[in-house]
Amino acid sequence: MKFDVLNPTRVVFGAGRLADLGALAKPYGSRALLVTGGGSVKRNGTFERAVASLNQAGVEVVECSGVEPNPKIGSVRKGIATALDEGCDLVVALGGGSVMDAAKVIAAGVLYEGDPWDMIFHGQPNPYIPFTALPLIAVPTLAATGSEMNCGAVISDPESQVKSFASTEALYPKLALLDPELTLSVPRDQTAYGIADLITHVTEGYFNSSAETPLQDRLAEGVILTAMQEGRKVLADGSDLAARAQIQWAATLALNGWVSSGNGGVGFPVHMLEHTVSAYHDITHAAGLTIINPAWMRFAAKARPAKFVQFAERIFALQAKGSDDLDCALEGIQRFEAFLTEIGCPTRFSQLGIDDQLFETYARETLRIVNDGQGRLPGLPPMSAAQIVDVLRDAS
Amino acid sequence: MKFDVLNPTRVVFGAGRLADLGALAKPYGSRALLVTGGGSVKRNGTFERAVASLNQAGVEVVECSGVEPNPKIGSVRKGIATALDEGCDLVVALGGGSVMDAAKVIAAGVLYEGDPWDMIFHGQPNPYIPFTALPLIAVPTLAATGSEMNCGAVISDPESQVKSFASTEALYPKLALLDPELTLSVPRDQTAYGIADLITHVTEGYFNSSAETPLQDRLAEGVILTAMQEGRKVLADGSDLAARAQIQWAATLALNGWVSSGNGGVGFPVHMLEHTVSAYHDITHAAGLTIINPAWMRFAAKARPAKFVQFAERIFALQAKGSDDLDCALEGIQRFEAFLTEIGCPTRFSQLGIDDQLFETYARETLRIVNDGQGRLPGLPPMSAAQIVDVLRDAS
Repeated sequence: MKFDVLNPTRVVFGAGRLADLGALAKPYGSRALLVTGGGSVKRNGTFERAVASLNQAGVEVVECSGVEPNPKIGSVRKGIATALDEGCDLVVALGGGSVMDAAKVIAAGVLYEGDPWDMIFHGQPNPYIPFTALPLIAVPTLAATGSEMNCGAVISDPESQVKSFASTEALYPKLALLDPELTLSVPRDQTAYGIADLITHVTEGYFNSSAETPLQDRLAEGVILTAMQEGRKVLADGSDLAARAQIQWAATLALNGWVSSGNGGVGFPVHMLEHTVSAYHDITHAAGLTIINPAWMRFAAKARPAKFVQFAERIFALQAKGSDDLDCALEGIQRFEAFLTEIGCPTRFSQLGIDDQLFETYARETLRIVNDGQGRLPGLPPMSAAQIVDVLRDAS
Repeated sequence: MKFDVLNPTRVVFGAGRLADLGALAKPYGSRALLVTGGGSVKRNGTFERAVASLNQAGVEVVECSGVEPNPKIGSVRKGIATALDEGCDLVVALGGGSVMDAAKVIAAGVLYEGDPWDMIFHGQPNPYIPFTALPLIAVPTLAATGSEMNCGAVISDPESQVKSFASTEALYPKLALLDPELTLSVPRDQTAYGIADLITHVTEGYFNSSAETPLQDRLAEGVILTAMQEGRKVLADGSDLAARAQIQWAATLALNGWVSSGNGGVGFPVHMLEHTVSAYHDITHAAGLTIINPAWMRFAAKARPAKFVQFAERIFALQAKGSDDLDCALEGIQRFEAFLTEIGCPTRFSQLGIDDQLFETYARETLRIVNDGQGRLPGLPPMSAAQIVDVLRDAS
């Protein structure tokens, strides 16, 4: 086990703490670019409350709204231009993963003279890896991506049909303000997608761990078990604030590096495939994940059943005949798929009206962006183009 | 659930990484006070390797050796004087929890003109809470206290017979260099104490959690299960580097704030009692913990069995009749005590030759240093002096 880990983001967690935003922001700057998505934060009053708190603390607000799902590099460019024109010294992201991801690249882009697409990994060494950025405060309004406490950002370029990521320490938010009250108004389907998203973040590390990692496995299983248990409560009663709080914290922990520290992750194959598919079809990220993940699990379980047997035993209390009991492993995956169906997530491309016409293209494009030097997608096991197509067909 | 959390310590983990110490230290300073304990790091060559790595990177070394177990404020004062005389701009701690704790207060004390005991909480508001310190690099040679990645330090004053703590963000090490090879030479008894120490750190948060914390509970259980499983491996074969690595990372996670974030911990009653006892008797910290903890658990389980039932079910796979099944709760505690005995830790004061003569004194002294304003020791439930004496008698 060999790893380096640092997570310098300060977490402020609690119902009602949006009211503290201004006081928390003031030490970092006096003129904030407030990045938001569509209109939901305006309709439900969150935007107004955020602005009021900032203003009351003496922080001026410059608005940057309209960041779309699967955020596009054009929105990032626009945000950078606004921040520069208006002399912002601080960025506040108020929204879901798309808003936070765009805000990260905006915060770094303000201090870079070139084009922000230079920061996004897309198949060759990046022209620019940011080492500094404006201070960023992330205020998630959705429990899902965990972007509030990590240093990753996923951005799309519609022109080249590439959806890819930046990931470097300068992109950590200075502060993540987690107020589970803000998630009370999230509709049932988006809530379910958030739960599925966070679980997939954990399974990617868990199943693609290159080392024996008993401690990380237990932590990962703890997040998954909690997400399923508290997720069912939230979906039964969206006003259950205690369960909302657990789901929000689970979403943060799923991708802040704590659970996966030391697991020697060799890739996020399900995410890489989803990024390609959603660069071609503007689908909800989590829907792409819930379709691809079970099919990928069936593929990987056949190559190395032991981890999937452990998953079946510890998550679904199944009894395996041994660590190579593929039937038990597949039964666990089926239970997992049934959970996704139960909470209303799709598990087949056909449910989204996506047919198999472009499967070869998705495989080729994914491998163009990321491969192990031998033409395979990193993961356990690594996948050839033909294997990718098989997995996509299994999910069709 | 309401909490703030920040842990800015960078972790560098891996067998053999002591060789990287110099390169890692160089950005922080060029003249290091190297704090160590007794002679073991010199006898086994660790000291020499650390110095060589530092020197090779251009970092000069000023030695500060002889920090004792249960580190005394006198050693801290001596370290501060040396650092000032020698113009050190960096502190490197190479040793166990005592060495790291002393090094933290030294690093802060160098930038404070008053007496370092002003930083240690002992029953009234502290005269000084450090807001800054020299950069500190912690290199644990023992998996136990988790001091390498937290902001706490426990220091004793033999004159006043007070053993108490400082805990504030300025005391976080900049970097924790975790090289499990360094723990290969730790004797069996010290290894067992480390395992018991880390488990106690987790149980204190787990059983004194004021909120419903399903996620934190799962993480805590994951650390305990791993510590027991890998601990048995290490004690069976001290050269099992993979298991040593798991124990070392578990010790760090047990007290770095990740597992307990949000559990609303209302106290560390077992630690508070142990601090008093070991201020009177210079016993190994973990031995005091393994004696007091099961007795405290029996006391607390009677007041609120549910959490102890969960512990019995999830750690020892017992089947409870319901969440108020005290018999099951007590059976779980008995299994836990049996584990402590199995690994060679004492569970009765009599095993250390400590009789009941001073039990009232321990209770009074503990409550003098920390109480809830109503004369009780914070915890779930809070303990009166009479209840403390009962618990100590149960452990006698």
